[in-house]
Amino acid sequence: MSRSGEAPKERFGRVAVVGVGLIGGSFALALKAAKACEEIVGVGRGRANLEAALALGAIDRATGDVAQAAQGADLVLVATPVAQFAAVFEALEPVLAPRALVTDAGSTKRDVVAAARARLGAKISHFVPAHPIAGAEQSGAAAAKAELFRGKRVVVVPLPENPAQSVERVAGAWRTCGARVSEMGPDEHDAVFAAVSHLPHLLAFALVRDIAGRPNSAQLFGYAAGGFRDFTRIASSHPEMWRDICIANRDALLAEVTRYGTQLEAVRALLEAGDAAGLERVFSEARAARNRWLDGEFDF
Amino acid sequence: MSRSGEAPKERFGRVAVVGVGLIGGSFALALKAAKACEEIVGVGRGRANLEAALALGAIDRATGDVAQAAQGADLVLVATPVAQFAAVFEALEPVLAPRALVTDAGSTKRDVVAAARARLGAKISHFVPAHPIAGAEQSGAAAAKAELFRGKRVVVVPLPENPAQSVERVAGAWRTCGARVSEMGPDEHDAVFAAVSHLPHLLAFALVRDIAGRPNSAQLFGYAAGGFRDFTRIASSHPEMWRDICIANRDALLAEVTRYGTQLEAVRALLEAGDAAGLERVFSEARAARNRWLDGEFDF
Repeated sequence: MSRSGEAPKERFGRVAVVGVGLIGGSFALALKAAKACEEIVGVGRGRANLEAALALGAIDRATGDVAQAAQGADLVLVATPVAQFAAVFEALEPVLAPRALVTDAGSTKRDVVAAARARLGAKISHFVPAHPIAGAEQSGAAAAKAELFRGKRVVVVPLPENPAQSVERVAGAWRTCGARVSEMGPDEHDAVFAAVSHLPHLLAFALVRDIAGRPNSAQLFGYAAGGFRDFTRIASSHPEMWRDICIANRDALLAEVTRYGTQLEAVRALLEAGDAAGLERVFSEARAARNRWLDGEFDF
Repeated sequence: MSRSGEAPKERFGRVAVVGVGLIGGSFALALKAAKACEEIVGVGRGRANLEAALALGAIDRATGDVAQAAQGADLVLVATPVAQFAAVFEALEPVLAPRALVTDAGSTKRDVVAAARARLGAKISHFVPAHPIAGAEQSGAAAAKAELFRGKRVVVVPLPENPAQSVERVAGAWRTCGARVSEMGPDEHDAVFAAVSHLPHLLAFALVRDIAGRPNSAQLFGYAAGGFRDFTRIASSHPEMWRDICIANRDALLAEVTRYGTQLEAVRALLEAGDAAGLERVFSEARAARNRWLDGEFDF
């Protein structure tokens, strides 16, 4: 489902950003650029990173205490590594005001929703999960920029407990950052991103590790060129983050790996049989589909 | 083996470029920019493409006849699709002058050497095979540029029949184009490029085809983002060219696909077991190796 149209500006009093990295810092900068809030409190554990966020003007105040930041907040963005979400939700539960909304930036949704249900209890209705499809190889507040989400997709994953106006207000916050917001259920979300994001990461990591583990790896890397560089770019992604994503989305990702193994075996069989026409058909179908994608045929 | 040092300029009288596409056209422009030859004759089947090469100043004359172009040439570059190489070698054989040298731009080398041996007979000594590691998604003479090979690697694959000075002179022609020349045997060449080029292409084609073949492919492409775009860039490569490369390098590529299947199965087993530490180790090793590569550790 797509929500399109011009971006209505959502307004907030105090906003708390828990985890002021690339995503959290950019969310803060975007809300400030849109004059969509009165004050932003940043929560983090690293002093240097919080100083960078203050210097950048992304946040007005910094603290190491989640509960303190969320006190009196209209909106809380949870943008730490997903492994810390349970502890963050636990700290939020006692202090969330009746009007307060919580959203997040986790790359998986079934596990995040489960953690939120376990820790937020009845206040689960405050939590409207989200997944911004934006990021970069850089990380940390210093890399944040107000334009990070401009034109990018954010998937909002409404829960049955969410009042409609809460979903609208959280979607509005992301739209205020310039994002194109759409909605999916948590299972659907995790299945879609297993296919188009998590699987490619796994395939790229596996290829580079395979090359790196050979006796002649120096020679092989020495001849690797632009195609290899782009194919493996995502293998420079953060190992801990991708470990957590893979474990969190294990079932959907296992299904994708199995499916891909079958596809690869079919291509291998064509190659083994010397079936030139069959290979050309596979390659042509792939190129045609990718080019339709680049041409925007699947945009919504 | 690497040949380094400053580029000594090699000089030629007439040069024939058979197949004036991106590679052939750029080779011609680079030799002209270096004032390394007196005249370049372009051979092609498409009139519009030859006109573009003439307009660009890449070639001085155009013809559809290989033998006519090679008559009196000091140097012939064969840069057509590999499927046409046998016919080109056959046309060259009767007209090659004693001093004439032939090189090529094919992506595989065992099959090219076999075709050359079959068609050039005793004149195989004139042929010094080469593989420029440069290219782009564009093709055709209109995309050619004198700088295409600057700083790029060209693998020269000397044959036992080649006099040392012929190898030096062909390597010198590529160096004159700005390339970094190194040498390998044909088997080694094909094994190395099966791993770092042909396998990644196959993997990318297979992924895109897998996504494209599903009932919800529009939804999946709709959520595919930058990581997917870079991972699959090589799946927009030319299907006929990659069909030919895969078939030509079938044995080495089959070995790579099998090996990759084993690696992927190992990663799948870690995922199935929920082995977070094991997955993180794979991802960290891959990222570390790729980052060393980006830092130039494997340059030579």
